[in-house]
Amino acid sequence: MDFVFSDRMKNMNGTATREIFKLLGNPEIISFAGGNPAIECLPTERVKEITGDICASPDFARVLQYGLTAGFPELRELLCKYVETAGIYGAKVENVLVISGGQQGIDLALKAFINPGDVILVEDPTYLAFLQLANSYEGVCKGVKANDDGLDLEDLEEKIKKYSPKMLYCVPTFSNPTGKTYSDANRRAIAEMTAKYGVMVIEDDPYSKLRFKGEYVPSMKSYDKAGNVIFISSFSKIISPGNRTGVAVADPAVIRKMEIGKQGTDLHTPNLSQMITYEYLRRGYLKPDLEKAVEIYGRKKGAMSAAINKYMPEEFICTDPDGGLFIWGKLPERIDTVKLLPEAIARKVAYIQGSVFFADGSGTNYIRLNYSYADIARIEEGIARLAELFKEKLAK
Amino acid sequence: MDFVFSDRMKNMNGTATREIFKLLGNPEIISFAGGNPAIECLPTERVKEITGDICASPDFARVLQYGLTAGFPELRELLCKYVETAGIYGAKVENVLVISGGQQGIDLALKAFINPGDVILVEDPTYLAFLQLANSYEGVCKGVKANDDGLDLEDLEEKIKKYSPKMLYCVPTFSNPTGKTYSDANRRAIAEMTAKYGVMVIEDDPYSKLRFKGEYVPSMKSYDKAGNVIFISSFSKIISPGNRTGVAVADPAVIRKMEIGKQGTDLHTPNLSQMITYEYLRRGYLKPDLEKAVEIYGRKKGAMSAAINKYMPEEFICTDPDGGLFIWGKLPERIDTVKLLPEAIARKVAYIQGSVFFADGSGTNYIRLNYSYADIARIEEGIARLAELFKEKLAK
Repeated sequence: MDFVFSDRMKNMNGTATREIFKLLGNPEIISFAGGNPAIECLPTERVKEITGDICASPDFARVLQYGLTAGFPELRELLCKYVETAGIYGAKVENVLVISGGQQGIDLALKAFINPGDVILVEDPTYLAFLQLANSYEGVCKGVKANDDGLDLEDLEEKIKKYSPKMLYCVPTFSNPTGKTYSDANRRAIAEMTAKYGVMVIEDDPYSKLRFKGEYVPSMKSYDKAGNVIFISSFSKIISPGNRTGVAVADPAVIRKMEIGKQGTDLHTPNLSQMITYEYLRRGYLKPDLEKAVEIYGRKKGAMSAAINKYMPEEFICTDPDGGLFIWGKLPERIDTVKLLPEAIARKVAYIQGSVFFADGSGTNYIRLNYSYADIARIEEGIARLAELFKEKLAK
Repeated sequence: MDFVFSDRMKNMNGTATREIFKLLGNPEIISFAGGNPAIECLPTERVKEITGDICASPDFARVLQYGLTAGFPELRELLCKYVETAGIYGAKVENVLVISGGQQGIDLALKAFINPGDVILVEDPTYLAFLQLANSYEGVCKGVKANDDGLDLEDLEEKIKKYSPKMLYCVPTFSNPTGKTYSDANRRAIAEMTAKYGVMVIEDDPYSKLRFKGEYVPSMKSYDKAGNVIFISSFSKIISPGNRTGVAVADPAVIRKMEIGKQGTDLHTPNLSQMITYEYLRRGYLKPDLEKAVEIYGRKKGAMSAAINKYMPEEFICTDPDGGLFIWGKLPERIDTVKLLPEAIARKVAYIQGSVFFADGSGTNYIRLNYSYADIARIEEGIARLAELFKEKLAK
């Protein structure tokens, strides 16, 4: 049978990170490709303890039965308080949706708003899986310029006027892939401008808790007076990616549409996943565990920066993030990181080619490097291998 | 801000079962509305034991990290064998996708194939959440007549010729909502006819293991020579709905597209959910537990049939299923079960109005009754309350 797939699938070939993930069964490959948190930063013992307690509870049968689509009521209530850590005050249960990881929140927001052909503005470069998801709704992504302060506000306004976009997507804190953070003033200005023009915003915030340097900046959602910002956060980087939980905060009318969308997607997030996240937060484990984790991430990032300084050719320019999981590197334009990737993998080191983060597929001279997953000795070794490859190519 | 939601959301107001589920916090209401398995049939102690063992395993950190989108390799391998219980032989890993419940499998199949305006044939009546999901992809559902043997093959062929549908959706064993089962010959004929005309089929099979009477019938997928049947099964009714796991079996090209779709939906099913299902199957718990469960379901169904005979007015006609979770009842056409539902709830008994199961919203004189959830004493009491209400209305 010749399968006639839907139009939305035509440009979908699997995200680069997910596809490369499959190769990484080979432990010889040093991977800077994924977005995996460090195994040693995941609260294995805490989750064991919590899971054991849930099993021992007289209420356990409830875990096995169907749950509400919007999430466990206790968890939703607790999340109203939790999001205060992002500067969001006064959230009520109807503002909050439990999601099966941040990715699902983005998917549901697009499902609720995007018709084929609708324009979505994104920072150039942006999270590659967002571009894939936008494709799956046949949205049209247009890149907005960024500077050290965040989005280039002039370019943003120009693009809003030019394209009448339905939505803006951004990762304002420790952006994926660049690791950069928008300033407080920039967030406020974006919130005001998008409200003025009636543009919805997805504020994707998986990384802000992973700050090892610099000052806390409140979320863009905290400046949202019009109700146009959908704040999406994930517990994947701070509790467990394998547990698949996250939270969306938005106007009740938006949350309701996302809830209806979720009825179709997975009915509800698995109960055990929700209860683990609930108990982890309720027991106050996040704060002390985060302190340890960010110390480790800071050291790993430091190790990668040091290795870059030591080994990389001087033509390699990169960001110096205060948190998150990624360094973003630039090579001279004649270096094509897409073509080089198989050679890198042959040398047992993996990165993500920068072009997958650009709305128009440009940026073939960039790479994204993850420093959270590999251990420090392997970070140095991996950067040395990559540097050797780049130097060879630059010498040609 | 005035929210301009996407076109696909315009006809989506939450499925009747999910919405009514919210009312059922009130324990005074006897609910025949949901599709919940009986709490006493869920393997609470087994899942406790398994979860404890997973926590104790030296491998536990792996549970917390990201997993592959297509599912745990061990689970996929085991599922290749598991689907032999549905008559599907020779499935390889690339034919199998782990899904977050059967609902997600349906969603991903639609995502892979349906463009706005594509026609999907469904049995009339059919699973209400399917109609909702089809709506979310702006598919157009057209009902096919059914008879005691399954789908009316003449009507099916006529509708295929008339509408050139992209897809047929059906629940051939213990259909939701009717509880009926397609005959072996009917399945084979549907598989052949859809292959001939190049129509994809979603065979939704959440209930076939819950047979308390009659003979096993192999799946429609077992007669699929062209690769056009997508078989979707769920562990929600036989292990745990709250655990959200299921399996899709299809041609590798179709599974691949569904996997890419799943990258966007939830990246992967939570690891702990997958491992619980894996261990439950691997340890051979399903067969003995099912024997006990179907005995209970058989008794509950018997109790509901007996209560119907005892209390219901003779104008009430209903099905007599050999398994599954539902009885489907018909009243004279002047009785509108949509309008009656609030009165039923006021009398502390809930059903699902039949109209939500019809592609065209007709069938306002039908109701679906679930017999798995309430205990036997409450089944009798609930049917008595409903019967009283119907008799009053019929007397007017």
